[in-house]
Amino acid sequence: MTKYLNQEEAINIDLELFNDYKYSVDQLMELAGLSTACAIADTYRNASKIIIYCGPGNNGGDGLVCARHLKLFGYEPELFYPKRTNKPLYENLTHQCCSMNIPLAEANPSVEDLNKYDIIVDALFGFSYKPPPREEFVDILNNLEKTKTPICSIDIPSGWNVETGPSENSINPEFLISLTAPKQCAKFFEGKYHYLGGRFVPPALEKKYNLNLPRYPGISSFVKLN
Amino acid sequence: MTKYLNQEEAINIDLELFNDYKYSVDQLMELAGLSTACAIADTYRNASKIIIYCGPGNNGGDGLVCARHLKLFGYEPELFYPKRTNKPLYENLTHQCCSMNIPLAEANPSVEDLNKYDIIVDALFGFSYKPPPREEFVDILNNLEKTKTPICSIDIPSGWNVETGPSENSINPEFLISLTAPKQCAKFFEGKYHYLGGRFVPPALEKKYNLNLPRYPGISSFVKLN
Repeated sequence: MTKYLNQEEAINIDLELFNDYKYSVDQLMELAGLSTACAIADTYRNASKIIIYCGPGNNGGDGLVCARHLKLFGYEPELFYPKRTNKPLYENLTHQCCSMNIPLAEANPSVEDLNKYDIIVDALFGFSYKPPPREEFVDILNNLEKTKTPICSIDIPSGWNVETGPSENSINPEFLISLTAPKQCAKFFEGKYHYLGGRFVPPALEKKYNLNLPRYPGISSFVKLN
Repeated sequence: MTKYLNQEEAINIDLELFNDYKYSVDQLMELAGLSTACAIADTYRNASKIIIYCGPGNNGGDGLVCARHLKLFGYEPELFYPKRTNKPLYENLTHQCCSMNIPLAEANPSVEDLNKYDIIVDALFGFSYKPPPREEFVDILNNLEKTKTPICSIDIPSGWNVETGPSENSINPEFLISLTAPKQCAKFFEGKYHYLGGRFVPPALEKKYNLNLPRYPGISSFVKLN
């Protein structure tokens, strides 16, 4: 059985990838964001307009990479990036999106605004997040909770507790892509599509944490999880 | 018609990707190496043992990334990396391969040694190279010239002039993956498989250089040329 990680395991695996296996954040974010874009494009082939919500941390970075690849795949992505990070990596990822004419939404999209998108990508919070959300994100999550537009969450449905799942201000995504390995909260996921992405886990690390990852088919960057 | 770049154009496009579009080398090398691994795996589905020759520059870096992804795809890659670069990026890429138990060949494989591999990946020299090769690479190229094992070249068949193609000490690859856009020497390629990879070119850059790139199918990271 594929292991579902608790928060501490997720954090430790991430640290080992950087410190012991010497991956750079640029590399893993690129692979994570690309696998997300591939899984979304494979699932929502007829979608066109997509809004990607990016949070201030690495989850938001995955969203920025995902937006760029969706654009290259022929979709019309837009970004909502309410709290930008002034680290060079994030500034560069944002610049790459802007250079490809991916628009940035200025204000929190209303529930009505969200109707005009075919899907919403949720890259707000990742596995380091603990509820409750900071005040500036409450209205944002409220609108995501109310919308009928399908939500695709990257790694963690935003607002959820990494281990215990839905809490107050919790969204209900239709699509979830777990990265590296699924987290415990994914057991509470009731949407249609659950994928695993981030095909970069060294076999020795998989073995050390007994991850029992499913086999990725062929050269695919994502795999369906039951 | 897809444009075939001269050396100066290839160098300028590369500089723009880094300086104007703010990509990091880590990002583009990861995408280039991944697309190469995908195209090789898609073409040589029954191959198993693969040796990847990595040169001292960025072409060698693409080879190191390619080796890691081939390993994750289930192949048995080995590296021959005769002149290592002591920059952190290359040290880390090499470390990532070693952490996945990808062996490093110690000496220049003889023509006979090469018989035991199903394919050879040539990541020795890229578009900055000008013949003739330095002395330390002459015997290496000689053996690659003589082997009957199919060679897959990344971006430029090593030893070739970027614009005028084959020269002395020139290999004859069966497979060539051009990255970003094909270089003029690719017109002299007579092998079976010519692909384009590195699906990261911003549309504005494509337009500026009149690249007229072919359309990548779906979410694929590579596309067949001609």
